[in-house]
Amino acid sequence: MTPVDLAWACARAMYDRDPTSRHLGMNIEDMGPGSARVSMVVTAAMSNGHGTAHGGMIFALADSAFAFACNARNVMTVGQSCTITYLTPAHVGETLSAVAVETALAGRNGIYDVAVTGQDGRIVATFRGQSAALRNSVINEETP
Amino acid sequence: MTPVDLAWACARAMYDRDPTSRHLGMNIEDMGPGSARVSMVVTAAMSNGHGTAHGGMIFALADSAFAFACNARNVMTVGQSCTITYLTPAHVGETLSAVAVETALAGRNGIYDVAVTGQDGRIVATFRGQSAALRNSVINEETP
Amino acid sequence: MTPVDLAWACARAMYDRDPTSRHLGMNIEDMGPGSARVSMVVTAAMSNGHGTAHGGMIFALADSAFAFACNARNVMTVGQSCTITYLTPAHVGETLSAVAVETALAGRNGIYDVAVTGQDGRIVATFRGQSAALRNSVINEETP
Amino acid sequence: MTPVDLAWACARAMYDRDPTSRHLGMNIEDMGPGSARVSMVVTAAMSNGHGTAHGGMIFALADSAFAFACNARNVMTVGQSCTITYLTPAHVGETLSAVAVETALAGRNGIYDVAVTGQDGRIVATFRGQSAALRNSVINEETP
Repeated sequence: MTPVDLAWACARAMYDRDPTSRHLGMNIEDMGPGSARVSMVVTAAMSNGHGTAHGGMIFALADSAFAFACNARNVMTVGQSCTITYLTPAHVGETLSAVAVETALAGRNGIYDVAVTGQDGRIVATFRGQSAALRNSVINEETP
Repeated sequence: MTPVDLAWACARAMYDRDPTSRHLGMNIEDMGPGSARVSMVVTAAMSNGHGTAHGGMIFALADSAFAFACNARNVMTVGQSCTITYLTPAHVGETLSAVAVETALAGRNGIYDVAVTGQDGRIVATFRGQSAALRNSVINEETP
Repeated sequence: MTPVDLAWACARAMYDRDPTSRHLGMNIEDMGPGSARVSMVVTAAMSNGHGTAHGGMIFALADSAFAFACNARNVMTVGQSCTITYLTPAHVGETLSAVAVETALAGRNGIYDVAVTGQDGRIVATFRGQSAALRNSVINEETP
Repeated sequence: MTPVDLAWACARAMYDRDPTSRHLGMNIEDMGPGSARVSMVVTAAMSNGHGTAHGGMIFALADSAFAFACNARNVMTVGQSCTITYLTPAHVGETLSAVAVETALAGRNGIYDVAVTGQDGRIVATFRGQSAALRNSVINEETP
């Protein structure tokens, strides 16, 4: 498997066992070693008391992109701490894209940055996740 | 209206127009001026690729408690930036409680801290939200 | 030694080998197991390009209070990640106080909150530190 | 003035009135519109109770790079909230470099990311600053 194939295989395995990402209609659009792009349409069920996308739903999209990116090298990795900053509101019906990249890796600790953008390309939120690698793998690479 | 009555009235109005909090089965248990306690049962649809509660769902619970707390004085207030740190996993079927308190207010900027605990009282996550007050109110206090 | 005596002994040992805290004129005012209060006068050398206390100096005060608090149980502990939010400016000549408390401990990970206040009691900044305990101790408790 | 000339002029003006950056021996190495590179040698006075660079001093370097970057378009801009994550220790005598880039700008709010690296290029810390623009300028562009 190439690193990109491995990243896709890990993401598909995680997605299959992640009811939240599926339930929210997230779509994995691109994968690489340490990176991921995930999209999601904001539905009415994801709006908040102010009439725009609920912060928790924007966070969930960014958090899933972070999770796919930091597990893409087939080392089971969990999030320790995440910060999201909201820059512009997102609207019901809009497709949001979350692009996660690996900013730093030092031993078992990593930093991943996710940019969430709207359909017109404007920045909706920035997210930074701090990850910790565990000792097991995401998928069994030996299995054909 | 007393400050506590006003806090409840604001929270109920926000909850009524917030499909996300309702959809996730959140329950407002206590309100005060600048504080809120909200609970939620972790369902199978809220689990992640590692078999425990999805970070985004724990965040959504904490974020809603933050939103109710920072809007409780009837000044429309939005979250600018939020940080969550995960300390212990939460399990499917477990009831989580999020208690939000006001740590600092300076002009239109506020800091709210939310502790998310599990059924056995252990700490699951800590959340800190930075808020910015807008110029309008949450509800019309004049209406009987 | 009582827990408070131990906290003081750990803080004094760290302070003695910490040129930064001494150099900035920090003063440890109170210690407890998991808590610390540290004060510092803002000198002209600590001001910034906007004429008020440099954010880095307010951070250094909060960071030292965090360090004393999370090492107070005589388990060598380091900061992993820290967030500071500035709420009001601090002035040259003003004495700042930083009060650190332990918000959560789960295994080797801890969360400490520090409030930095000015002479008039107003909140200057809030700081949250995430700590990780190492395997050694701060001081040798056996030594008389 | 070109945008790069303007960025240098703003940085020099801020540096001249910033005793902290000068006092810590910071050196501005590169400037651009929204970006800055600043270096600093870790002195013995900047070490901590664990024998490596004090977190507050690494923060101060990153914070100054952030300040120069977010003021580089000649709009006076202040930091609201900053997060630093420490990845590897820095040593006394080592030259640290902080590279700040603009990650997002939406109205008056900005997000800047700073990477602090050691002499061997390893990542020492990542820093994210959230900025708010004020209404005045940093320098008078009309003055010859």
